[in-house]
Amino acid sequence: MDMDKLVSLCKRRGFLFQSSEIYGGLNGFWDYGPLGVELKRNIKEAWWQDMVRGHDELGVPAGAPEAYEMTGLDCTIIMHPQVWKVSGHYDLFCDMMVDCKETKKRYRFDQLRGRWVTAKGKRIFVTTLAEAEQEAEDLEKRALKAFNLRGKDAESLEWEGASMSLDKVDDLASVFAPEAKEIGTLTEPREFNLMFKTIVGAMGTEEDAAFLRPETAQGIFVNFKNVLDSTRVKVPFGIAQIGKSFRNEITPRNFTFRSREFEQMEIEFFCNPKDSRKWYEYWRDRRMKWYTDLGLAGERLVMREHAADELSHYSVGTADIEYAFPFLPEGEFGELEGIAHRGDFDLRSHMEGKLVKNAEGCLEVEMVPVEGKPDKLRPKHRGSGRDLTYRDEVTNEKFVPHVIEPSSGADRATLAFLCEAYYEDQQPDENGELQTRVVMRFHPRIAPIKAAVFPLVKKDGMPEIAQDIYRKLKAKFSAFYDEKGAVGRRYRRQDEAGTPYCITVDGQTLTDGTVTIRDRDTLEQWRVKVDEVVEEISKRVM
Amino acid sequence: MDMDKLVSLCKRRGFLFQSSEIYGGLNGFWDYGPLGVELKRNIKEAWWQDMVRGHDELGVPAGAPEAYEMTGLDCTIIMHPQVWKVSGHYDLFCDMMVDCKETKKRYRFDQLRGRWVTAKGKRIFVTTLAEAEQEAEDLEKRALKAFNLRGKDAESLEWEGASMSLDKVDDLASVFAPEAKEIGTLTEPREFNLMFKTIVGAMGTEEDAAFLRPETAQGIFVNFKNVLDSTRVKVPFGIAQIGKSFRNEITPRNFTFRSREFEQMEIEFFCNPKDSRKWYEYWRDRRMKWYTDLGLAGERLVMREHAADELSHYSVGTADIEYAFPFLPEGEFGELEGIAHRGDFDLRSHMEGKLVKNAEGCLEVEMVPVEGKPDKLRPKHRGSGRDLTYRDEVTNEKFVPHVIEPSSGADRATLAFLCEAYYEDQQPDENGELQTRVVMRFHPRIAPIKAAVFPLVKKDGMPEIAQDIYRKLKAKFSAFYDEKGAVGRRYRRQDEAGTPYCITVDGQTLTDGTVTIRDRDTLEQWRVKVDEVVEEISKRVM
Repeated sequence: MDMDKLVSLCKRRGFLFQSSEIYGGLNGFWDYGPLGVELKRNIKEAWWQDMVRGHDELGVPAGAPEAYEMTGLDCTIIMHPQVWKVSGHYDLFCDMMVDCKETKKRYRFDQLRGRWVTAKGKRIFVTTLAEAEQEAEDLEKRALKAFNLRGKDAESLEWEGASMSLDKVDDLASVFAPEAKEIGTLTEPREFNLMFKTIVGAMGTEEDAAFLRPETAQGIFVNFKNVLDSTRVKVPFGIAQIGKSFRNEITPRNFTFRSREFEQMEIEFFCNPKDSRKWYEYWRDRRMKWYTDLGLAGERLVMREHAADELSHYSVGTADIEYAFPFLPEGEFGELEGIAHRGDFDLRSHMEGKLVKNAEGCLEVEMVPVEGKPDKLRPKHRGSGRDLTYRDEVTNEKFVPHVIEPSSGADRATLAFLCEAYYEDQQPDENGELQTRVVMRFHPRIAPIKAAVFPLVKKDGMPEIAQDIYRKLKAKFSAFYDEKGAVGRRYRRQDEAGTPYCITVDGQTLTDGTVTIRDRDTLEQWRVKVDEVVEEISKRVM
Repeated sequence: MDMDKLVSLCKRRGFLFQSSEIYGGLNGFWDYGPLGVELKRNIKEAWWQDMVRGHDELGVPAGAPEAYEMTGLDCTIIMHPQVWKVSGHYDLFCDMMVDCKETKKRYRFDQLRGRWVTAKGKRIFVTTLAEAEQEAEDLEKRALKAFNLRGKDAESLEWEGASMSLDKVDDLASVFAPEAKEIGTLTEPREFNLMFKTIVGAMGTEEDAAFLRPETAQGIFVNFKNVLDSTRVKVPFGIAQIGKSFRNEITPRNFTFRSREFEQMEIEFFCNPKDSRKWYEYWRDRRMKWYTDLGLAGERLVMREHAADELSHYSVGTADIEYAFPFLPEGEFGELEGIAHRGDFDLRSHMEGKLVKNAEGCLEVEMVPVEGKPDKLRPKHRGSGRDLTYRDEVTNEKFVPHVIEPSSGADRATLAFLCEAYYEDQQPDENGELQTRVVMRFHPRIAPIKAAVFPLVKKDGMPEIAQDIYRKLKAKFSAFYDEKGAVGRRYRRQDEAGTPYCITVDGQTLTDGTVTIRDRDTLEQWRVKVDEVVEEISKRVM
């Protein structure tokens, strides 16, 4: 699938617009248009319904060790700054970056790609900002520039190895930066914190600095006790939240995939430590099934389990659900969701303070010398001091629950569903000539419009019958009415919007009281009595 | 109603928690707990359904001049900074504040209240931070302190007039600030911009400063052309959006009423200028009806139309929908929603640049001298230069649409529904003794839980029947199952959660296949066949 075609359709049909486009746009920020907002709302609604509101707490779901409860939460984006000091984000949520001394541009150390090349007896690492498809072409162009050669001299370039990321290069003095004229203009890599900072309150001092949350998860951990105290939930249970998060990405890119403002759908699932492996496996499989149930099937969706040596020592497992986005190089996948066993790391941090691994590899509170008394130690970042342990009423066992965290990106899911849905086929037009048809094959549950109703012509009472059907559908779900232009054109517009069913009122309707229903994907058409249309569509889309 | 009781119930039952409470909280930020998140979701869902998704674009709604279309949008919180320069927020979105030179505290000039008082031959304006109920008491305490008097000397204080806000006082040297020890410690009032600032991108310079949106409206205006181009909407039509906004309030207070992070539900409705008065009146009445339909009835809800001299010269009207929140002084109301006719101000601004009133009272682009060439002028803040006019296809008329803006606060609506729902009555307990019953009388559409199912006792197959009913209800909407403790207690817990219907499986169920349904408000109980429960409840809550 051609990504440019999807991006163009998204703008043309109102799925996605660049934020503040009339002012030249803002890099890493995207707005959802009229169709996009319904698509994304449906995805978030499906997640909330399947994970929280519709969860049957009495039955044991397939694959689950036992029955469990789910509750929701909605926390603020700006939280107390201590939350981020204790969680580790303040000290550690950084990317390594390099600056170009010549152009004053800044790049992510692990994202800038390039390739070693030799000419005129000199070996340099030439870099490019081009996407995967244009990479080779741009590397050649940049290399010719670096050596002051012309296009016809391209054969004199001696290339080595495959392209690789800059962080694999140990000699920065040989690097030709992407927009530079000189070689060796990049600084040594430095840390750059990805949290957006702001000042809360009227005083405007650094003491009032706060951060836009880089993840929704911490809001759940700091409310763990509030939820226990205000409900009667018992471990095992989960707390779910949908909300915006912010990361000041150095190089946002790939359409909405790496945005600076994005929405997450996160669950923190609290369980007895002895059961955590079983729950990890349950959630890993349950979440994978959620995507496949909504249409992300086939070989483009994969589950990648982290190898044992990639895991934190306290973790029994982490898995990523990944999708082969079309803007990635062949064989590469982008993360949709991570399911991580986090042990008691988070709750312990908020009790005790920021944790680090000690010499034995165990977690303990990070200590630093007291100012002026170098032989006395204090916690680097103090925890809340609250007791976040849990006492099992039946066994009387007391423990800090272990956490399984299925953390999903709502915008990435939306983007994957858009990519998966995009499909072209050849269909005859009114004159029988084959034309390319663009169709968005969304699962009916997430389709922005569930059904469209057309009168074949604007006369003989057809509009009135069609409008009556439209109103009855609209009372139940999103429906569309269209009486303008040739019916073939109207079908095409709905195909592009991803509307699964079109209903047409025609001449036969006037004689036998039936209408045609057309299936977006199979193009099959069948007739149904006017009175039965609402039920027929409802059972297919709800 | 006692506000303290509501605040306490909100925490105890999981409607609202203070943000980051385990770290001492963060002033002006509130989290929604398990019941609160469902309540607020239902309110937002009702708004979206009634205003956008369920809107019938073919019929003429009651009171509307003609049929109209509605679309949705979901824009980012961080937008291009030029948006806020052009809209006027960068220069003008300020509160006046005063600093206390003694305590280093900062106060909003129009919010600090106090009263003139004379003693020992000296007349001062004594201020207080106390809420309405404690105001008189605290003023006396502070006045005694100011004059170095004791409680028994209270009669020697000579009070003048009623309490009033500090911005009515012209002599700041006589003011006794709320937490000060000396008199006359406040500075002259100064401007303080309420937008939260952050830096986007890796360079960290002031050039990259951006702001968290203080309203969702501007995202709609800058996407006006995108929506026109990607849909086939025709004027008149509306664009709706739900999302977070941020204002760095100097003195956040009154529970969630004045928060620094809050959620808005905004519509920008675009119409032909000649019809704008009719559309203003339609939206004013339509929005008032929305609140009354969902249960905010009675004299606590008022519509306040701004007097002609309060309006911008270009506006045909502005109305506030206000609610008598219990934390306000008797007779005062707090704004839930403003419905404003904004003329062509917003679209023109984003075309031409920041507008100001000229000598004739007309809007024109604000001009400032070019640096170094004081006799040459340039626009202070440049617009996008895009053409945001609209051409009517039928009449061929070209115009900048006028805007009607119904702008509602989701958190304020939630708070009003919470206040309105809180109710106490006296009901006999199991021993026939009268006890205070606390009941949240939410409209069924917004109630967090629609129905609870109880087996009277945990035997004789009652739990199985109850669980079966629970599962059937849960497939349609939020339901709760409870088998613990006396049934009277279970009813009380659901009353506090605002669950409109409780279903009890009892001995008679085993013989005649009926269950009781209990109405939360009337306490009426009636029997319904097990097979008919789902339909009976559905028709009452959906």
